[in-house]
Amino acid sequence: MLKLFYTPATCSLASHIALEEAGASYEAHRVDFSKAEQTKPEYLAVNPKGRVPALVTDRGTLTETPAILTYIAQTFPGARLAPNDDPFEFARLQSFLSYLCSTVHVAHAHARRGARWADDPAAHEAMKAKVSKNMADCFALIEGTMFAGPFTMGDTYTIADPYLFTIASWLEGDGVDPAQFPKILDHRNRMAERRAVAKVLDVVRS
Amino acid sequence: MLKLFYTPATCSLASHIALEEAGASYEAHRVDFSKAEQTKPEYLAVNPKGRVPALVTDRGTLTETPAILTYIAQTFPGARLAPNDDPFEFARLQSFLSYLCSTVHVAHAHARRGARWADDPAAHEAMKAKVSKNMADCFALIEGTMFAGPFTMGDTYTIADPYLFTIASWLEGDGVDPAQFPKILDHRNRMAERRAVAKVLDVVRS
Ligand SMILES: N[C@@H](CCC(=O)N[C@@H](CS)C(=O)NCC(=O)O)C(=O)O
Ligand SMILES: N[C@@H](CCC(=O)N[C@@H](CS)C(=O)NCC(=O)O)C(=O)O
Repeated sequence: MLKLFYTPATCSLASHIALEEAGASYEAHRVDFSKAEQTKPEYLAVNPKGRVPALVTDRGTLTETPAILTYIAQTFPGARLAPNDDPFEFARLQSFLSYLCSTVHVAHAHARRGARWADDPAAHEAMKAKVSKNMADCFALIEGTMFAGPFTMGDTYTIADPYLFTIASWLEGDGVDPAQFPKILDHRNRMAERRAVAKVLDVVRS
Repeated sequence: MLKLFYTPATCSLASHIALEEAGASYEAHRVDFSKAEQTKPEYLAVNPKGRVPALVTDRGTLTETPAILTYIAQTFPGARLAPNDDPFEFARLQSFLSYLCSTVHVAHAHARRGARWADDPAAHEAMKAKVSKNMADCFALIEGTMFAGPFTMGDTYTIADPYLFTIASWLEGDGVDPAQFPKILDHRNRMAERRAVAKVLDVVRS
């Protein structure tokens, strides 16, 4: 059985929703950041990076949101969560996942995780001060040139949708008014109505 | 014909080498950072993110190193650059690409691109000061738990190899002695001897 290690209000939400959308059988294990469980030997044995998500499969453990999402899409092909048979469309999807992971998520992380990149508390404040501009710039690019509609990549729901939903749900916390991005706000609202999304949000918020 | 937009001494080297390894027909277009060409309207029309690499295909333009590498591996299956038919091994590969893109490349970028994440010059200095520690930590994890050997993912050369080679070539510039990481140093040396790598380095350094 698949095991997902997750923490509420983090990027692991994307993988969690994708498992539900795929109709997968899985166990969800909460990693409690308030107890710093992600830094304890027990969790480092699962993921030496000390981060969520991690997906334990019968062949080994996978980390990194784009990889976990892709694994779910490829092992549950019936759920049609990725254009697995069209290398160009598949690469467009990977490009979107990669942008969220390497640029947008990283822009957000500078608000609370500045200690990763500098030791000086004044530098942490300087990073925090730029987060809302950077997140707004990223979402302007997504809204303006990347979001195809009605789903992220176009007519079909894919693994990019729960990932975009997850990161877009951080906007207010990062000081960005999502009303500037009507396509993304509408997508976020439509996503929240999906059965899989509501079910996962119930679990992680409980 | 494929067109790769590249800049010497950047992450575009990975995609460039992969095109050679695949035996692809492609044109390579240099983007001159010393003239800030990546910020000019002409290049932003190719890639609105203002970054390299970008790969122009007959169906559209792809950005993000993991996506471009995956596209090359999937459209030149004869070159066997990815385990396209094994979802678990494919996801392991995607996880490695994603880690390089979202964590290791980002750790390196804090040395010269601090202005992305803060406006205060003192914060840029504080970020720069932590780069060698962060790069050493990332490479300790790669050397210790991720690098399978003799190639990055194991017995077979994949798209992870030129990507790791590219980022490992930044270590000295980031103040890290690669001798601490004998497997990675040996990999880097073996990579440099490959015909495809030598050919691309000749072109980008000319
Ligand atoms: N590139 C990774 C990033 C994972 C990551 O940074 N997860 C955060 C939560 S969103 C985390 O576990 N942070 C815990 C910590 O930094 O201690 C991915 O996309 O999965
Ligand atoms: N996530 C992107 C990052 C691309 C990127 O940051 N490229 C750098 C060169 S390594 C760049 O174009 N920098 C130009 C700039 O920041 O102005 C990828 O992996 O392709």
